[in-house]
Amino acid sequence: MTELTIIKIGGKVIDDAEALSQFLSDFAKIEGDKILVHGGGKIASKTGEKLGIAPKMADGRRITDSETLDLVTMVYGGLVNKKIVSGLQSYGVNALGLSGADGNLLRATKRPVKEIDYGYAGDVEVEGVNITFLEKLLKANITPVICSLTHDGEGSMLNTNADTIASIVGRAMAEGCKVDLIYCFEQKGVLWDLENEEVISEMDKVYYHELKNQGIINEGMIPKLDNAFDALKAGVYTVKIGHFDQVLELVHGLGHGTLIKNR
Amino acid sequence: MTELTIIKIGGKVIDDAEALSQFLSDFAKIEGDKILVHGGGKIASKTGEKLGIAPKMADGRRITDSETLDLVTMVYGGLVNKKIVSGLQSYGVNALGLSGADGNLLRATKRPVKEIDYGYAGDVEVEGVNITFLEKLLKANITPVICSLTHDGEGSMLNTNADTIASIVGRAMAEGCKVDLIYCFEQKGVLWDLENEEVISEMDKVYYHELKNQGIINEGMIPKLDNAFDALKAGVYTVKIGHFDQVLELVHGLGHGTLIKNR
Repeated sequence: MTELTIIKIGGKVIDDAEALSQFLSDFAKIEGDKILVHGGGKIASKTGEKLGIAPKMADGRRITDSETLDLVTMVYGGLVNKKIVSGLQSYGVNALGLSGADGNLLRATKRPVKEIDYGYAGDVEVEGVNITFLEKLLKANITPVICSLTHDGEGSMLNTNADTIASIVGRAMAEGCKVDLIYCFEQKGVLWDLENEEVISEMDKVYYHELKNQGIINEGMIPKLDNAFDALKAGVYTVKIGHFDQVLELVHGLGHGTLIKNR
Repeated sequence: MTELTIIKIGGKVIDDAEALSQFLSDFAKIEGDKILVHGGGKIASKTGEKLGIAPKMADGRRITDSETLDLVTMVYGGLVNKKIVSGLQSYGVNALGLSGADGNLLRATKRPVKEIDYGYAGDVEVEGVNITFLEKLLKANITPVICSLTHDGEGSMLNTNADTIASIVGRAMAEGCKVDLIYCFEQKGVLWDLENEEVISEMDKVYYHELKNQGIINEGMIPKLDNAFDALKAGVYTVKIGHFDQVLELVHGLGHGTLIKNR
């Protein structure tokens, strides 16, 4: 079975040109088929601020109204995606930037309005992933660089969480590949405590629920971990969470980050 | 020989959602292999204004400094490109948005500094076009949607005129295809006079120089026409210039627009 490495980056590494360049140079060294998924970092909120687009919230949840959709389409699909793609090209990786609309890669459903109207937020399922297209690209030695945008097939882009996209793409590709899914961010893994930065080296679902009940897992980590466990359940071979500086160690499994285990 | 239609749009059709939607619906009806090339319309300058990025000029020429490059990367590569791609997907066209960095499609050279430093402006030649990649996409029934951005292969995006990109891509593809290149804009063709909107129905190079000397061809048309004649000289089969509302008539050659002739 072909091996496929899917790496998701977000946050600090996108906002810091030097860190991004170092990460891309490391990413270029990963052998075999690979896919990069990225969010938008703080550039979206900063650009939004300048454009006078205030972040919209309802009950503490982020809302994608029409002007916010335009903003994230510009920043994720344009600025950030092309910086990554041109950077990878300079390191010899034949990268191709993709939103969910490109090649009909990720068809999603606009989130139904219940208590909250999330606006142009896209929910994507495994069935919405154009596996054939991804397989063709990988076979042609092209490295897909996927931003956190999907489309509804009816002419509208939709905003979808990058962690979720990485997980869904991993699940879809798991049928034909041995998928290694790695979430990179600015911490060394899932932490016991933020102060000492002590990493939890392994975690299964029972342990996860225990730590969640004890309040050790912080709120920001919960969707990431839920996506991780969903991916494992659906056949993704390994899921790891760690620092973007240690991406090569994470790929080679050299005792860094948190290994998410399916048990 | 396979026929290939390359259409370039810019200006008003991009700024007007309804006009764009109508154009994309027409474009979807064009049979056979096709490529769409687009500029950024006024959205770039409007967004730039809001972001406090003033247009930079030197000797009446537009300069792409670093913040302008970020601006056009956002607007051309993100906002406009994804609006077009998602729109085409809704009309059943499997569109794929591309900048010059994606799949190493268009490798350009940063314009050398002589009297004027144009900043991040990219000059692209036929040799810089990744023909194999375009051929593979077309063979897979994918419609490339190319924005007016190239890259230097060293990690930087570059700003390149969309008319020029359409012409260069046409020239590169002319070796293997019978290329029909159509420039669509907000006029019915090259005009005798702007007031009566009387269209010059055919033009060869001798006639072009005559009209230019008489001051009948306005300044904005000159680079478009130079690109058109360059394309014909390099083997592009036909070049037409006309209104975006009449794209289907232009494709089928039904007595609209200006036919540029190689003589």
